[in-house]
Amino acid sequence: MFSTIAKKVREHQEQFPNAEIIRLGIGDVTLPLAPAVVSAMRQAVEEMGAGETFRGYGDEQGYDFLRQAIQGYYKGKNVSLDEQEIFISDGAKSDLGNILDIFEAENTVLIPNPVYPVYVDTNIMAGRKIIYMDGNEGNNFLPLPDESVKADIIYLCSPNNPTGALYNREQLECWVKYALSNGAVILFDSAYEIFIRSEGYPTSIYQIDGAKNCAIEFCSFSKTAGFTGTRCGYTIVPKELISDGVPLNRLWLRRQTTKFNGVPYIVQRGAEAVFSSAGQAQIRSSIEYYMQNARVISGVLSELGIWHTGGENAPYIWLKCPGGMSSWEFFDIMLEKAGVVGTPGAGFGDNGEGFFRLSAFGNSDSTALAMERIKSFAKSGL
Amino acid sequence: MFSTIAKKVREHQEQFPNAEIIRLGIGDVTLPLAPAVVSAMRQAVEEMGAGETFRGYGDEQGYDFLRQAIQGYYKGKNVSLDEQEIFISDGAKSDLGNILDIFEAENTVLIPNPVYPVYVDTNIMAGRKIIYMDGNEGNNFLPLPDESVKADIIYLCSPNNPTGALYNREQLECWVKYALSNGAVILFDSAYEIFIRSEGYPTSIYQIDGAKNCAIEFCSFSKTAGFTGTRCGYTIVPKELISDGVPLNRLWLRRQTTKFNGVPYIVQRGAEAVFSSAGQAQIRSSIEYYMQNARVISGVLSELGIWHTGGENAPYIWLKCPGGMSSWEFFDIMLEKAGVVGTPGAGFGDNGEGFFRLSAFGNSDSTALAMERIKSFAKSGL
Repeated sequence: MFSTIAKKVREHQEQFPNAEIIRLGIGDVTLPLAPAVVSAMRQAVEEMGAGETFRGYGDEQGYDFLRQAIQGYYKGKNVSLDEQEIFISDGAKSDLGNILDIFEAENTVLIPNPVYPVYVDTNIMAGRKIIYMDGNEGNNFLPLPDESVKADIIYLCSPNNPTGALYNREQLECWVKYALSNGAVILFDSAYEIFIRSEGYPTSIYQIDGAKNCAIEFCSFSKTAGFTGTRCGYTIVPKELISDGVPLNRLWLRRQTTKFNGVPYIVQRGAEAVFSSAGQAQIRSSIEYYMQNARVISGVLSELGIWHTGGENAPYIWLKCPGGMSSWEFFDIMLEKAGVVGTPGAGFGDNGEGFFRLSAFGNSDSTALAMERIKSFAKSGL
Repeated sequence: MFSTIAKKVREHQEQFPNAEIIRLGIGDVTLPLAPAVVSAMRQAVEEMGAGETFRGYGDEQGYDFLRQAIQGYYKGKNVSLDEQEIFISDGAKSDLGNILDIFEAENTVLIPNPVYPVYVDTNIMAGRKIIYMDGNEGNNFLPLPDESVKADIIYLCSPNNPTGALYNREQLECWVKYALSNGAVILFDSAYEIFIRSEGYPTSIYQIDGAKNCAIEFCSFSKTAGFTGTRCGYTIVPKELISDGVPLNRLWLRRQTTKFNGVPYIVQRGAEAVFSSAGQAQIRSSIEYYMQNARVISGVLSELGIWHTGGENAPYIWLKCPGGMSSWEFFDIMLEKAGVVGTPGAGFGDNGEGFFRLSAFGNSDSTALAMERIKSFAKSGL
């Protein structure tokens, strides 16, 4: 999908060399790293250049200083983690793919539709049987368990990419109950947890009783702290989590120590600084900046009477293409009439057809301009 | 093995708290990063902290600037590579493990014995059939193909870890010929290529005619430029390489874009600096420092009449335990009598039994002291 988007944009630019295109498509961040992170990495670079402070191989699972900082962060969520349950990774995408190494290829996986394509692609590559569950306007793109469906592995992402939808406590309790009664494992992608603003919503699956017996949680500094080009995340595999009689923590430790060699010391120092009080203040100010974009996008869509979800507790706004347009028809018209690039919902699964994703990660001026353009062309007759 | 070593060392230290232990065991580097690398990463950190120069997601396969620098490095070896044949990784260990994703689980693998344990462990985890080929004193730990043995995947590491042995051109030609005639793929680990000093030896498998049709090459900045804690490497998958009718370059691209998200921008800038003229001079001076250690180790072993190989074109010296001792007996006596920690050869496969690995990556004073101690206790009757 992203290569098709790139091709269409390139062709448009060739045809209209003066058109200024605004990209509200790919979910990449635009704000620079926080000063606290830069300062920590600056120091770490110097340490690596001096004999007395140089660091060679670290533990594959990550340095204690970072694992402890994450442990403290979860304590703030009222989740108690053992340091050995926390594995530092080079990003949620890698771990979400590699985690499959510890599951049987014969397992059946349950995946929401629409969905982050990596869940699907990695399982197709492994030849696993995939059952899709419907996300749609009716359930606000938050599918719930169906007792008649049996699966071994369940993917959940909340706040959701691409829809921005957020599961509440009761809904997550249903999922945990279903997983426990079916002996299934939930792979819980919490990469967008920091965007949750509404009170009372879980920010970790482990805030649900019983989740430590059935869930692995994946998180990332990519969206939290602008690490998309700096590469760091973490995966939590509780010690209580047993699948087919085997503790998954031990299997994942074996997988990682055998097929991974840790995240750069410099990057881990940068990630540690995210949890300092200065770091937290700085990253939350960036999140606020993005969420202001989300409000601008959402405001204009509401004004135009376009159905949409997300944008309140997530950096993504998921809208229904007006006039019954298909995702790609809307993509084309947005590009042509407004010079705005978004992401066709159909690229996230067939349930995404007729929908469209806008991202709040852009520059605020560009985002405002993009929405002004959409407003003008919509008023001139969408 | 490494946990047993750590336990034995800990016990020794508890018993003799004043004993100064010298570690010539694990193959980690000790010299800090080169000034050119530090300077490049320093600048990259600043770029990441400023809005105008910030970098988000890069291509999973790596930045052009680094792929082109590697392309230039191979040109110096008379090997012509397309930029798209070069994949930047977070280290050879990860890629040597992950590459198995693009091969069938039914394949048979051929692995030398003794060997870097990652080759074996990753295949055991995947349930593949492993055939071992004997490395021994007779073939100087350089096994050659046996036409009666059929395999789909062949692991070669030259200069070798753990033995330090180096294949010459004719020997590598035999391997390429064997792979081509059997439709097998060679996974060539060239992590130690920079240590090759002897004239006329290949420093890349692609210096052998036909290798582009049968070999993937893995290299790393870990030993070359002290990146063990900084994490960067690269894997070369030639476009000509077809296995079971499928171009492996395309499969690996798919695997990496789906299950990996690239190496940090900061680290890639550091790696690029390795190839600058200042960087090359600096890293070669570090290599010279380590190779001086190798000469010291080798010199004492020769003086003591202990059979050994390696140390000439590799940072490892592989010795035969004197007096018919087993690897672990020699480990114990070295620890007890000389306070020197090495690596028991038996940990690299049963053909390593009765052998022992010493590493040249230590501090030069400590290495000299370790060898003095070994000399004294040997002369007092080994």
